[in-house]
Amino acid sequence: MNRKLKMGMVGGGRGAFIGAVHRMAANLDGKIELVAGCFSSDPEKSRLSGEDFFLNPSRVYSSYQEMAQKEAALPEGERIDFVSIVVQNNMHFAVAKTFIEAGFHVICDKPMTFTVDEAVELRQIIKNSGQIFALTHNYTGYPMVKEAREWIKDGKLGQLLKVVVEYPQGYATESINGEEGKIANWRADPQVAGVSNCMGDIGTHAHNLVSYITGLEVEAMCAELTVFIPGRQLDDDGNVLVRYKGGVKGILYASQVSAGEENNLTIRVFGTQASLEWKQEHPNELAMKFANAPRKIYRRGNDYVGDTANRFTRIPFGHPEAFIEAFANIYLEVARAITDRIKGVDAGDYDFPNEDVGLDGMLFVDTVVKSSQSDQKWYPYPSM
Amino acid sequence: MNRKLKMGMVGGGRGAFIGAVHRMAANLDGKIELVAGCFSSDPEKSRLSGEDFFLNPSRVYSSYQEMAQKEAALPEGERIDFVSIVVQNNMHFAVAKTFIEAGFHVICDKPMTFTVDEAVELRQIIKNSGQIFALTHNYTGYPMVKEAREWIKDGKLGQLLKVVVEYPQGYATESINGEEGKIANWRADPQVAGVSNCMGDIGTHAHNLVSYITGLEVEAMCAELTVFIPGRQLDDDGNVLVRYKGGVKGILYASQVSAGEENNLTIRVFGTQASLEWKQEHPNELAMKFANAPRKIYRRGNDYVGDTANRFTRIPFGHPEAFIEAFANIYLEVARAITDRIKGVDAGDYDFPNEDVGLDGMLFVDTVVKSSQSDQKWYPYPSM
Amino acid sequence: MNRKLKMGMVGGGRGAFIGAVHRMAANLDGKIELVAGCFSSDPEKSRLSGEDFFLNPSRVYSSYQEMAQKEAALPEGERIDFVSIVVQNNMHFAVAKTFIEAGFHVICDKPMTFTVDEAVELRQIIKNSGQIFALTHNYTGYPMVKEAREWIKDGKLGQLLKVVVEYPQGYATESINGEEGKIANWRADPQVAGVSNCMGDIGTHAHNLVSYITGLEVEAMCAELTVFIPGRQLDDDGNVLVRYKGGVKGILYASQVSAGEENNLTIRVFGTQASLEWKQEHPNELAMKFANAPRKIYRRGNDYVGDTANRFTRIPFGHPEAFIEAFANIYLEVARAITDRIKGVDAGDYDFPNEDVGLDGMLFVDTVVKSSQSDQKWYPYPSM
Amino acid sequence: MNRKLKMGMVGGGRGAFIGAVHRMAANLDGKIELVAGCFSSDPEKSRLSGEDFFLNPSRVYSSYQEMAQKEAALPEGERIDFVSIVVQNNMHFAVAKTFIEAGFHVICDKPMTFTVDEAVELRQIIKNSGQIFALTHNYTGYPMVKEAREWIKDGKLGQLLKVVVEYPQGYATESINGEEGKIANWRADPQVAGVSNCMGDIGTHAHNLVSYITGLEVEAMCAELTVFIPGRQLDDDGNVLVRYKGGVKGILYASQVSAGEENNLTIRVFGTQASLEWKQEHPNELAMKFANAPRKIYRRGNDYVGDTANRFTRIPFGHPEAFIEAFANIYLEVARAITDRIKGVDAGDYDFPNEDVGLDGMLFVDTVVKSSQSDQKWYPYPSM
Repeated sequence: MNRKLKMGMVGGGRGAFIGAVHRMAANLDGKIELVAGCFSSDPEKSRLSGEDFFLNPSRVYSSYQEMAQKEAALPEGERIDFVSIVVQNNMHFAVAKTFIEAGFHVICDKPMTFTVDEAVELRQIIKNSGQIFALTHNYTGYPMVKEAREWIKDGKLGQLLKVVVEYPQGYATESINGEEGKIANWRADPQVAGVSNCMGDIGTHAHNLVSYITGLEVEAMCAELTVFIPGRQLDDDGNVLVRYKGGVKGILYASQVSAGEENNLTIRVFGTQASLEWKQEHPNELAMKFANAPRKIYRRGNDYVGDTANRFTRIPFGHPEAFIEAFANIYLEVARAITDRIKGVDAGDYDFPNEDVGLDGMLFVDTVVKSSQSDQKWYPYPSM
Repeated sequence: MNRKLKMGMVGGGRGAFIGAVHRMAANLDGKIELVAGCFSSDPEKSRLSGEDFFLNPSRVYSSYQEMAQKEAALPEGERIDFVSIVVQNNMHFAVAKTFIEAGFHVICDKPMTFTVDEAVELRQIIKNSGQIFALTHNYTGYPMVKEAREWIKDGKLGQLLKVVVEYPQGYATESINGEEGKIANWRADPQVAGVSNCMGDIGTHAHNLVSYITGLEVEAMCAELTVFIPGRQLDDDGNVLVRYKGGVKGILYASQVSAGEENNLTIRVFGTQASLEWKQEHPNELAMKFANAPRKIYRRGNDYVGDTANRFTRIPFGHPEAFIEAFANIYLEVARAITDRIKGVDAGDYDFPNEDVGLDGMLFVDTVVKSSQSDQKWYPYPSM
Repeated sequence: MNRKLKMGMVGGGRGAFIGAVHRMAANLDGKIELVAGCFSSDPEKSRLSGEDFFLNPSRVYSSYQEMAQKEAALPEGERIDFVSIVVQNNMHFAVAKTFIEAGFHVICDKPMTFTVDEAVELRQIIKNSGQIFALTHNYTGYPMVKEAREWIKDGKLGQLLKVVVEYPQGYATESINGEEGKIANWRADPQVAGVSNCMGDIGTHAHNLVSYITGLEVEAMCAELTVFIPGRQLDDDGNVLVRYKGGVKGILYASQVSAGEENNLTIRVFGTQASLEWKQEHPNELAMKFANAPRKIYRRGNDYVGDTANRFTRIPFGHPEAFIEAFANIYLEVARAITDRIKGVDAGDYDFPNEDVGLDGMLFVDTVVKSSQSDQKWYPYPSM
Repeated sequence: MNRKLKMGMVGGGRGAFIGAVHRMAANLDGKIELVAGCFSSDPEKSRLSGEDFFLNPSRVYSSYQEMAQKEAALPEGERIDFVSIVVQNNMHFAVAKTFIEAGFHVICDKPMTFTVDEAVELRQIIKNSGQIFALTHNYTGYPMVKEAREWIKDGKLGQLLKVVVEYPQGYATESINGEEGKIANWRADPQVAGVSNCMGDIGTHAHNLVSYITGLEVEAMCAELTVFIPGRQLDDDGNVLVRYKGGVKGILYASQVSAGEENNLTIRVFGTQASLEWKQEHPNELAMKFANAPRKIYRRGNDYVGDTANRFTRIPFGHPEAFIEAFANIYLEVARAITDRIKGVDAGDYDFPNEDVGLDGMLFVDTVVKSSQSDQKWYPYPSM
């Protein structure tokens, strides 16, 4: 096989933010081409979007069901190899199920589904199918996040004691003052977004980042979610104390009403030998701190950075890489897995968030909401 | 009256850290002179310390009781105007009570007392006496902390929504690994330190900083304190969710096992119009952030900074001021109050932490410990 | 016309760094497809590279002359629309001339040519041809660099007084110690690189950045270039005092022996009303500083940032963009110009470095080398 | 001897900035007391200043000559041990000479004198006298500056290659716009300040910092000084290329018209093994950078910092020290030297800027001005 992988897309038409990110992530490395799509539930908008992306009109579809069916009928090598799902949250389950069952691999924007039940069911469908499913918890694509994970695997921090992770944004502050911001308001609509806005949208990224870097599992949570924006039903801020298994303590918080914060996702992990700190807004640096030694600042792209991080690095040190490249690392890794599958190979070390991560994300949001509503101090975290 | 104020000191002999800081703070502005002291419960050590400070041997005492008595017997203008108390926590009450009752003003290192009951009693004694009592919650002495307080008073942040305050240190991490650090271990001894180590020592500073800057009062807390160091009884780490009156939400945490952190006290306050951020380790800057405008970085010493901050500023912008100057601002302000008192004046605007702040600090520590021990999610904060 | 633009590439085969960057930059936005190339002077390496990029073997050529000839013979819409030239410096002239004369638009890695004479000649050829020529002075593609340019155009800094620009790297430090670093050594070979290594490679970027942001023209320079690495002929460090027309003073320096620096390109421009500061390693921020007002930090992607910067912004604030996106902005803008040309449109506002910028870069390097060799304090800068 | 050292002061009356800094520096450690002074050429102002400082009126003098004479006539132990000279530049020579010749040690604000000739003469007078003379090049008092010096002495940077030192300020920008700033304008008056304003006031600090940290001696300089402020005679900006002995290259610049800069004195030293960076506005950190290893951030007060730095450290890590403490380190060290002298001891390792440093500072300013006026590219630096 010597060809680009063929990608389809559901959602992500003109004006949609996250669809554009997925396309850039797919384009970057020249290994994937977008060949088909159903970009909107509005057929005309879907058609125009297809034109924007220079697609053959015959492969721009009016419904995702039609797309799944017709693509499946195309000969191998012509039909799509996988689909990217970038529709609203409440549609994820149906679309993903349809394409998995039609025999396609799937990359899905998070959250995996609308409800925990759907997630449980979809995960089973995926596992039964043997298809590849990836969820774009894109922050795990940053090279220095992978470096952080390696440090902990290698014991460089010693025994873990504490984790502090935060994801403050400020864009919704304007809504408090009566102006609606430009970032999608459907996220605040429980019919579309699910049981949570802030925790579902960004808190879950914070949780996933802890999970990816440290491997820690939550034992119980003590949460307080708040709705600051008048007239809203879903949280726009949330603070959580976390007990991880093994006695590790944590703080996790997320906010959309922190004026002037943008995507200030920051994680600090403290161990008996050292601690680490990483900030998404300056993603090329990773700090290692010691109780009695000079701080060390590791910078992406250097020889002294580990092989895993360097495998996901495109350009040398000093020329920054950023969000799109990290997102593209998810695509790159899924592309490797799909290509291997086509070749009949299983390298066994694919590093992207899968359906288990997807279910865990749903459990996180569900538990944090229940904890917030509960008088019980420590709300137990369910096992998968 | 045209003379320096005369200061006595109890505690703070050779090798004691905080006593040296108090002396530098008192020295800096040339308005106070140390003239008497009982620097140690060991008379020989007290005597040698008196020599270090060039004191008249007749005014270096073997016990604080003797000191209070003999100083009170000296003529006005010769006897001390006030005493600085820098003994261990469990002695604060007795020493402060003695000097207040002997008619002296008091500057006391925090915490005010060993127990809440003592604090309640001492506060009453102070109020009855009419003497001046100041507690060195020194971080409130930083000019840009005062600027932050002014911003909130002036409504620049709009209605407050959320506060995040943290005080991580890492020095105790070595103790986890079996080595004892150089910072006083009596802080971990419940017989000396009280009911808490980490929260009592530094968590209370974080709480006080919120209180000073925002004026917010705690309604309830949900705390988890942890003892990570084997063999210890008192907390070396604590995480707290806070409900302030008026619907403001907060996170407060403190830690002594955060490897590589030093005194990384940081406060962020979020309002409907703007947010602020201040870091103790870079105290000359104060950031104001907006949902849709460029961040503004205010720097100490500039004309555009408010009068209150500038009143506590000694040198122009760009030449940093730091911890000792902030500490000295407490002394400077107490000296102003005492001088006014001597002159029979009451300016009414003295800006230093008093006995009410002292009691609140004791209540904070007591409540956070009780909350941590409780299964109740929201532990109510007592009124004074 | 509704199709992707078709790109050819000369140079940039397996293992070449800058060719890969050009391909990613071309790929990112899905508007350009690589369809042909001569990736190496070694035909087998060229062929294998063509496979890597999934090209039709019939369009992978053994020589750039063959490529130009055969592509020109293909029908419009099938043949390449433009070529990217990423060969070594001493080949730029010949390759660019060949493709321009064959009727193709050209994107060329910098420097434009090997000598000033070649640059003068090539510029004339380009102007006579009417073809589009772009030189990848990629740092001008950063949105906040464009914002900086707008500030100065809009007079926000007042009258300009001084510019400080620096580009320190450290990778060559290892060569001093006898180890050869991994970054291309041909840059130190005068037969390949030209009259300068450090100033030619990175100093010229610093100069271009000043020129782009401020519009200032150099009047005279006083340079000292140094060869620190034993056995080398070309500079690895250079310091320059600059006199710009209109009385503006400047410092420009570049270095490859600044241990621990990566690509720390930084520019500061000082005016009578304000100053600005931008750092390539944190490219999403641009600072505006005032003599007596709080500093303002502008961050990419916000509404308050100007239209020009926002036109070159792909994702919202807080999710960083970086080097590849900036590089892609050059491609995006050239693609717009070529597409307009195909459509018969001339928008007149294309924002990419052209042949005039290319010649100026050659003049800069030539003058800085001559200045360094001269005893004359102020070496005049030639007019174009 | 067990007493505080007795200090006199010439200059520094009400409203004078630098006199207040000297007094705080002297006060801080409780080892020095101000006992006498001639604070102004206006006797009434001098008298009032003496009251401000709680001095005995009999020791507040109307002229420095009277002061020198009368203090010398007092018995040892009562008369001043040393004098601090904080008058305007053009008076330094006369006052210093008077007190040296009267048998007193001297601490003098920089510059040492008004002219090079005076400096040569004063230096000889000092050396003949055997008295202690210290010049307050205060930035050398910062602990992490001392640490930097130790690194280079210990060879941690390898062989030095390059130095970049800068000292931009912005306060004079307002003067360009017709408003006079609050910082002393006599610095711009050649009758008072000398041959240079900006280079004399702050450029000389930058030069001294290089000299102190690296031990490098200047071989030749190529300078351009500029007067941007209309109507002024003396420079408010200057850029200098420097050749140090041993082949080390340098850039030094200083500016008072860099809007928004405060006292952004920054030094970077590059060697074959590592480089260092220190910024006066964040003085508690010192970075060590490597060509291929993580950056190390050293922070004041830690055990891993060297003994020299720690000897000048008053409070533990994390609680910042700043400008006044650094200034006080000069006083502390001079006090140690004077005390030893009184005791008849010579420790031989006193670490403060002396008359040789003072003369070098005058030579620097003189040479940089001559270089700027010269057409000669490399202006030789005189030997002392």
